[in-house]
Amino acid sequence: MNKPELPSYLNNIHIVLTRTSHPANIGSAARAMKTMGLTKLILVAPKLMQTPMTPEPPQFDANCPEAFTLPEESYILASGARDVLEEAKVVSTLAEALAMTTLSCALTSRRRELTAPLHTPRELTPSLLVAAQSDQQVALVFGNETFGLSIEETQLCNRLITINGNPDYFSLNLAQAVQVICYELFSQVNVSMAHLQQELNLANHQQISSMVMHLRQIMDNAGFFNRRNEERLMRRMAAMFDRAALTTEDIDILRGFYNTINQRMQSK
Amino acid sequence: MNKPELPSYLNNIHIVLTRTSHPANIGSAARAMKTMGLTKLILVAPKLMQTPMTPEPPQFDANCPEAFTLPEESYILASGARDVLEEAKVVSTLAEALAMTTLSCALTSRRRELTAPLHTPRELTPSLLVAAQSDQQVALVFGNETFGLSIEETQLCNRLITINGNPDYFSLNLAQAVQVICYELFSQVNVSMAHLQQELNLANHQQISSMVMHLRQIMDNAGFFNRRNEERLMRRMAAMFDRAALTTEDIDILRGFYNTINQRMQSK
Repeated sequence: MNKPELPSYLNNIHIVLTRTSHPANIGSAARAMKTMGLTKLILVAPKLMQTPMTPEPPQFDANCPEAFTLPEESYILASGARDVLEEAKVVSTLAEALAMTTLSCALTSRRRELTAPLHTPRELTPSLLVAAQSDQQVALVFGNETFGLSIEETQLCNRLITINGNPDYFSLNLAQAVQVICYELFSQVNVSMAHLQQELNLANHQQISSMVMHLRQIMDNAGFFNRRNEERLMRRMAAMFDRAALTTEDIDILRGFYNTINQRMQSK
Repeated sequence: MNKPELPSYLNNIHIVLTRTSHPANIGSAARAMKTMGLTKLILVAPKLMQTPMTPEPPQFDANCPEAFTLPEESYILASGARDVLEEAKVVSTLAEALAMTTLSCALTSRRRELTAPLHTPRELTPSLLVAAQSDQQVALVFGNETFGLSIEETQLCNRLITINGNPDYFSLNLAQAVQVICYELFSQVNVSMAHLQQELNLANHQQISSMVMHLRQIMDNAGFFNRRNEERLMRRMAAMFDRAALTTEDIDILRGFYNTINQRMQSK
């Protein structure tokens, strides 16, 4: 069966990472995005730290944002999503990143003194997808790993999005937050997943009821209904089979079994 | 404003990791779980590999599963979710892990020759939460990082769950898969499911597999397997029963029927 195509409007959805510290997170974000059909990554003033794999992190120069290159660590974590990194835009300010967008969602982890309404990803995604489908540019904005988004950065966005979880313990790192958001977005895209469906030969109503009648006969021949409520038992069995999404092969096996039992009971 | 309380039925949801290789993934899974209000972790025959942080990984001994201890690396990655690791159960087989469950969902990444229906987390979560709310035990089962779940392990489960994404590129590692599943579960908590609840005494994994063994015996006694593929037939029957949401009364009827048949076949 042909693989379905990703809808092109997914290209109108931008993942914006601001002032990211860890090179690995940028790579992981790219992988998380591509896994969920997203391709547009924007980096705002990345502020890379030293890591074991990246002892000399490239320094971002606000006067020359396009000169910034990511270290190898980012590409390693990106795995087969190198292309997302290669095509990523790098800008100096969040305002530049959001310039062409109509919807911009700041991911925030806690209630702050902010006036925009707070939404869950589940709630907000439909409007994001509708906007993207109408060729509008939308952005999901993530802050620095340690400090999140600043108040000013949050206020540049016209939506607030928060991932709900355990009120007593909430530890979701940047890569995971990006993964969850991308998962939520894709989960609401109606891409036909028909290629995942299985080829089943479901038995029809008539085949099932014939099989159940056959079972009733065998049970009767065996004396199973002596001192039992035949009607009630058969109703339970019929209901059980109705829940079981029987295939024609299941019917064949069961009826073959009933026949075999019947022969054994009679032949002796 | 008082912090909301996590509903206690979340404790009826078990995250099962089978044959996990990387100690860090076990820690990350614990953190992902606790972040989404889940506390019950089960490790099945962990097969830890050497890592830079864990040069001498503890070896799991099937004869003494409770003696297994996690390396420090797992605890480091678990961060503030140490308690989940400390309370994790360790068992030798998936059957043990699933014994008391009524719903067990195998996470699979691709179509396989399997007969159980394939669901997204979005679709399956309501029934998982309803079951948990009715004090049933439910499990989400994840396989080894490289190989996933074996066919046999998948067949022990009565549901298949798959996370949809980009058909051309899908790279979700174990920790992220656990995070996404836990996120989906939590995202549907507090949606009132009262209208979906049913008064059912669902049979658990152990009761069902005992009944299927009993059926196998009867079929064998009847000579039903002569010139048939016993393994294949029993797999189809087991899968059929797994779809059927059997109640304890269904089990009683079926086993009563098998006993009756057996007597009739032998007494002559």
